[in-house]
Amino acid sequence: MNKIITIGREFGSGGREIGRKLAEELGFAYYDKEIITEIAKRTELSERYVKTIVERRPVFSYPVHVGRSFLNVNTSTVIQSSAVYAEQCKLLKEFAEKSDCVIVGRCADYVLREYDPFKIFVYADEKSKVERCKKRDESGIEKTDKEYIKLIKSIDKNRAKYYDFYTGQTWGDKLNYDVCINTTDANMDDIVPHLAKMI
Amino acid sequence: MNKIITIGREFGSGGREIGRKLAEELGFAYYDKEIITEIAKRTELSERYVKTIVERRPVFSYPVHVGRSFLNVNTSTVIQSSAVYAEQCKLLKEFAEKSDCVIVGRCADYVLREYDPFKIFVYADEKSKVERCKKRDESGIEKTDKEYIKLIKSIDKNRAKYYDFYTGQTWGDKLNYDVCINTTDANMDDIVPHLAKMI
Repeated sequence: MNKIITIGREFGSGGREIGRKLAEELGFAYYDKEIITEIAKRTELSERYVKTIVERRPVFSYPVHVGRSFLNVNTSTVIQSSAVYAEQCKLLKEFAEKSDCVIVGRCADYVLREYDPFKIFVYADEKSKVERCKKRDESGIEKTDKEYIKLIKSIDKNRAKYYDFYTGQTWGDKLNYDVCINTTDANMDDIVPHLAKMI
Repeated sequence: MNKIITIGREFGSGGREIGRKLAEELGFAYYDKEIITEIAKRTELSERYVKTIVERRPVFSYPVHVGRSFLNVNTSTVIQSSAVYAEQCKLLKEFAEKSDCVIVGRCADYVLREYDPFKIFVYADEKSKVERCKKRDESGIEKTDKEYIKLIKSIDKNRAKYYDFYTGQTWGDKLNYDVCINTTDANMDDIVPHLAKMI
């Protein structure tokens, strides 16, 4: 069976960087944004739309009563979300079958549980997450610290809801992971080689 | 400044084993039960009594109204708990000043925060904690799994209350630690050398 490493991460904690460096260090395949591109191809939805869907759990609305019929206004979104999730699961399993790999996000720790992955969760304190977001922000739009904090909280809230919805587990709960790494004061280049050996 | 490693751990997770092996691997001093013995010596309380105190936060009772006076029935215990905690803090700082060291428990991550320790939290799932407890139980008294689970929960509840009371933080909250390690399926001998290098 191939060796699979999955990485859950708080927004701005550098989880993606750890994932990429780990894959380099171990000579494993690395999957992150490629997953969105591939799902978009397979479902014939735009990448941007897929990205929106995979960051949010489907929103079930209460049925709206119109005349004598019930109309669920969000049916099509729910169906699309489920279809994208199903495609994503299929894709992750294809990756896992193909070679040793590192997969960032996408509930991969849960979806690939039969492959006994090594599950990492990466987190950090608020201040260092804001600093990391600032450094990598290529939008060109200046933001205050408060705005970054709001953004981080909102993205993580959606990640948590998405994860909890599809896995029935709690996102970030350390029992779901083999190792949790606090990157607040950490130097990635120091951590990764030893983490790789530990795995 | 000396290198300090602190280890918080769930009961039965093998945190003590990781601590001892890490200290061996790194050639650091190791402090665990020695702390109780030393406090007992310094406070002239029995080791058994100190052990009871350092596993529990002081219990404040509501003052009892007797005639015209208020009587707090637990005053002496509270004073003793605080005295023991103060002695413990002093002792931990002496250890930190003396040499590189690994310290298990005792809120050392918080008490020694000025020494910038590397803070580890060790945890595991219930089943593996029960198995570990069974293996190392030298009491000779046979217990059911249910009884072990009750024991584990009760000890961890006290640890959490003690830690939360003295540090104002939440015991086991991953943000208080640099690395959290799940020992459920882990082989300590595999983990420790690489963890040592990572630190």
